[in-house]
Amino acid sequence: MPAVPARLGRRGLAIGIDIGGTKVAAGVVDAHGEVLAELARPTPATDPRMVEEAIMGLVSEFEASYRIWSVGIGAAGWMDQSGSTVLFSPHLAWRNEPLRKNLEYKLRRRVMVVNDADAAGWAEWRFGAGRGESRLVCVTLGTGIGGSLISNGMVERGRYGVAGEYGHQIIVPQGHRCECGNRGCWEQYASGNALGREGRELARANSPVAQDLLRAVGGDPDAITGALVTKRAAEGDPTCVELVQDVGHWLGMGLANLAAALDPGRFVIGGGLSGAGDLLLQPTQASFQRHLTGRGFRPAAPISMAQFGARAGMVGAADMARISARSGTRGTRPARSGT
Amino acid sequence: MPAVPARLGRRGLAIGIDIGGTKVAAGVVDAHGEVLAELARPTPATDPRMVEEAIMGLVSEFEASYRIWSVGIGAAGWMDQSGSTVLFSPHLAWRNEPLRKNLEYKLRRRVMVVNDADAAGWAEWRFGAGRGESRLVCVTLGTGIGGSLISNGMVERGRYGVAGEYGHQIIVPQGHRCECGNRGCWEQYASGNALGREGRELARANSPVAQDLLRAVGGDPDAITGALVTKRAAEGDPTCVELVQDVGHWLGMGLANLAAALDPGRFVIGGGLSGAGDLLLQPTQASFQRHLTGRGFRPAAPISMAQFGARAGMVGAADMARISARSGTRGTRPARSGT
Repeated sequence: MPAVPARLGRRGLAIGIDIGGTKVAAGVVDAHGEVLAELARPTPATDPRMVEEAIMGLVSEFEASYRIWSVGIGAAGWMDQSGSTVLFSPHLAWRNEPLRKNLEYKLRRRVMVVNDADAAGWAEWRFGAGRGESRLVCVTLGTGIGGSLISNGMVERGRYGVAGEYGHQIIVPQGHRCECGNRGCWEQYASGNALGREGRELARANSPVAQDLLRAVGGDPDAITGALVTKRAAEGDPTCVELVQDVGHWLGMGLANLAAALDPGRFVIGGGLSGAGDLLLQPTQASFQRHLTGRGFRPAAPISMAQFGARAGMVGAADMARISARSGTRGTRPARSGT
Repeated sequence: MPAVPARLGRRGLAIGIDIGGTKVAAGVVDAHGEVLAELARPTPATDPRMVEEAIMGLVSEFEASYRIWSVGIGAAGWMDQSGSTVLFSPHLAWRNEPLRKNLEYKLRRRVMVVNDADAAGWAEWRFGAGRGESRLVCVTLGTGIGGSLISNGMVERGRYGVAGEYGHQIIVPQGHRCECGNRGCWEQYASGNALGREGRELARANSPVAQDLLRAVGGDPDAITGALVTKRAAEGDPTCVELVQDVGHWLGMGLANLAAALDPGRFVIGGGLSGAGDLLLQPTQASFQRHLTGRGFRPAAPISMAQFGARAGMVGAADMARISARSGTRGTRPARSGT
């Protein structure tokens, strides 16, 4: 029999599972937002049943080693107000999917399901780059753009539960087609997917400036992803740096729109693309300053990179579930912090 | 000596003054939102002192006939969080203007100053087309676009007091120049000013379809205003109907963006342009339905025309001041209704 880990049974351990457009990331998270164990799987994007199976597998693995108090799911979809049904997911197969009921039946325990971007924003507000901010907007840049608003210690879900879909503000009329069904959505210009698309397009144009990038993928433009462009930008490829700057231009403009409408005290940028760090943050800040309405006559909210990066959704979903289990509720609005 | 009006001294009478880009509208408003008396002046747009003089004159006139409990000003500018300073006004001369202090000094009484669109939204939520809605977005279409969010009975002002500037979301990159300093702001496409500009441009192009409109202004394109186009559309001029439909297209698209970000339970459209009624409402609803992200998989907030029309700012400013005077506060967040 293996030695019992010191942390086994530690009070308030929760599993957080972040279901994104490409990856299911799961972790055991303690009451201070620390990740004690971590697993990841590719997202079975086309079949909701397979997503549920993946979640069950991950929970079982963790339960073999940890005493778990609560399970929280951050899902890249739009939840109804009660947090029981995924109404729609631009990047996954959920359409009016009773995800919570299905999981509670299969796992034989209570489960909290929240929007993945809400979970990420919650993590950054509780433990990360947005700690203590009375009005925090968090955007997560990955397959698309996730968004959340944490105001006075509450996740703002809107009247029908679907607030915060900033990625689907139309910012270029008749622009790029979006998975949501519209054209010109912000996430078609400022997400990891957008970065990959621009990289592939540049490579297909066979421009001299794209030759290094093309060589890196063996001459196959289809192999270029947002993650690859980000990585090469960090390594100093000037063309990839430009592509990240272009994303920063659109990102800053969209944040300026959000400042006009929501007036937060701070923005936090998370998700996979936030790994680009200053390469992305600097052009974003410049574009934000340039496009902020009334600039010079109003405070300009600072923009920070997320502290939890791609782990924010996992940490936030776990924390929201832990708080919800303690307070005996399971809606999508955790009580004020301090609990 | 004239007969004393029956309503003189009626409990809780307030003066509401709405300072817009072109007009100062003032009224005596009772506790039920009823307007007992009304006056209007053109806005002295270039000199803040003259605006204050106009306000003083209006208050004096009303005080001669009514016992006034409180005075509320709705100003087409961005207030700081405390409601004492107008930080910026795209259409007026205020730049960091201590409007409340100046008025309290000159009027020798307490004054409440709020954003004009917040006042309009408050009136519609308290007494009008948005009554009882837990999450109401109101946009007012006039010189520009004013915006407000009344959530759970509170005006949402944001972290720095400047939330709700929906008119300055950039919706057309490199589009029409806006008074705020940017290009492509929503209010350059969906306001009364936008309607007038499009009418003038069409007339200057000397298109056959613009001949009736041109004749109506004696051949002078510069005489075409948004109000004129609205009036002629109501009278059946097919070209003016088209111009109003174009505004509806942009209006619906912008509202769809707000639904994505804010998820209200209802939209109310106010301001001068709301006088176009169904001519504007129908294309707006069609465009909203067409551009709503996730349509078919989420509730679509209904869109209503304001009940108070151009009087909403006046009524709301009076009501906010009345409630604030009763509760002994004078911030920009009136307490929950029922007071």
